Amino acid sequence: MIELLPEETLHDLPFGNNKLIQNKNLFCYGIDAVLLSDFAKTKHNSKVLDLCTGNGIIPLLMESLSKNNIFTGIEIQQSSVELANRSIELNNLQNKISIIQGDLKNIKELIPGNFFNVVTVNPPFAEVNQAIKNPSESLAIARHEVLCTIDDVVAAAAYAIAPGGVFYMIHRPNRLNQIFLSLDRNNFKPSRIRFVHPDTTKAPNMVLIEAHKDCNRQLKIEAPMFVYKSKGVYTEEIQKIYNQK
Amino acid sequence: MIELLPEETLHDLPFGNNKLIQNKNLFCYGIDAVLLSDFAKTKHNSKVLDLCTGNGIIPLLMESLSKNNIFTGIEIQQSSVELANRSIELNNLQNKISIIQGDLKNIKELIPGNFFNVVTVNPPFAEVNQAIKNPSESLAIARHEVLCTIDDVVAAAAYAIAPGGVFYMIHRPNRLNQIFLSLDRNNFKPSRIRFVHPDTTKAPNMVLIEAHKDCNRQLKIEAPMFVYKSKGVYTEEIQKIYNQK
Repeated sequence: MIELLPEETLHDLPFGNNKLIQNKNLFCYGIDAVLLSDFAKTKHNSKVLDLCTGNGIIPLLMESLSKNNIFTGIEIQQSSVELANRSIELNNLQNKISIIQGDLKNIKELIPGNFFNVVTVNPPFAEVNQAIKNPSESLAIARHEVLCTIDDVVAAAAYAIAPGGVFYMIHRPNRLNQIFLSLDRNNFKPSRIRFVHPDTTKAPNMVLIEAHKDCNRQLKIEAPMFVYKSKGVYTEEIQKIYNQK
Repeated sequence: MIELLPEETLHDLPFGNNKLIQNKNLFCYGIDAVLLSDFAKTKHNSKVLDLCTGNGIIPLLMESLSKNNIFTGIEIQQSSVELANRSIELNNLQNKISIIQGDLKNIKELIPGNFFNVVTVNPPFAEVNQAIKNPSESLAIARHEVLCTIDDVVAAAAYAIAPGGVFYMIHRPNRLNQIFLSLDRNNFKPSRIRFVHPDTTKAPNMVLIEAHKDCNRQLKIEAPMFVYKSKGVYTEEIQKIYNQK
């Protein structure tokens, strides 16, 4: 039995059968983690690295959609690593998911290079000088680029990924130029982009990005994804993502 | 009176009161020219340069939406320059629009640098090795990157534009990465992007781009533009663009 602290809740994940322990004082996952895990659906028997893994939501979601994949997460905050490890234990996934505590800027000291078939990241979105930082330091680290920039994240992915591997990221559309320039500096080419819009009339507020290293694939910008079809009602596509088994 | 050749037609432009002479054996304008002219709506009293101007469609459209703007077009093909000049004469716009015959790769020999408030371009879209070239050489030049690449176009814009000026381009979404890298090499930053989709279910097939030089604006990806609301029926937004006066 896993014991929960008063500030913790046990959460059934939107797809698959895994459960997640969340602490309401730490960062709680949102639709971005769900969409990235679905977008990054991956072949079986892959080695998957998740950067900025937080409470382990991405590996826990992706594990439920895959067979025989081995997941590694890197997370800088010790409190999140502990939470992730307790969720992993709760789901009996200790042999499939492992979390490394450390700073991705020192990734060469944490994991082998050229090793992972898939690298995912749902990094902190907000620029440090852009929005008001959350008063809680832990939340500020999870939400803002306090401890890593886009360049740090992409460089870490470039180091970790094996030849032929795929890199998946979700981010804000207004950062797309910086992301493309950073991918280029790190010998990645964006191969697939999908914008996520609240509804058909709105500007996108998220962008899903797939990139390959040292390849000549043509960029494909896919049909837009819309989250709501009417107030508070998900579109069929989002419902399908949330209900897959 | 303007005399038309048998292969020529006189065309009322979709907005404004200007008319255009088209030659069915040369490149005829499409919705991309209309959307770019609307997207690039510009302040009055501006100096506007249109690269790859062809039959002058962009200056002729933009002139009708502006007051006291002076337009210059650069076009490499003599046959298109002659057609553009006859349309300009037909509309009595000789004091507002002038066309220069020449290769934008030699732009420094054609026009002064740091001079234009607005630069527009609806360049040839298709890569040379990508699609079957049109058997007519003139059409191939208008549709394919036979005579200029994205880099050539962006470098020409960077030379021509005045401090604080704005650059507008329409292109294919699958070229967005190359466009962003080329803008970066030429000290432009993309400031506004709008994807154009056939309808709400389809991937975009055009992208409108606004860029500024040496500035720190945040990139804004706008709400998507949809062309059709049902088979053959334009959305209200497209109808409004086509019917503005």
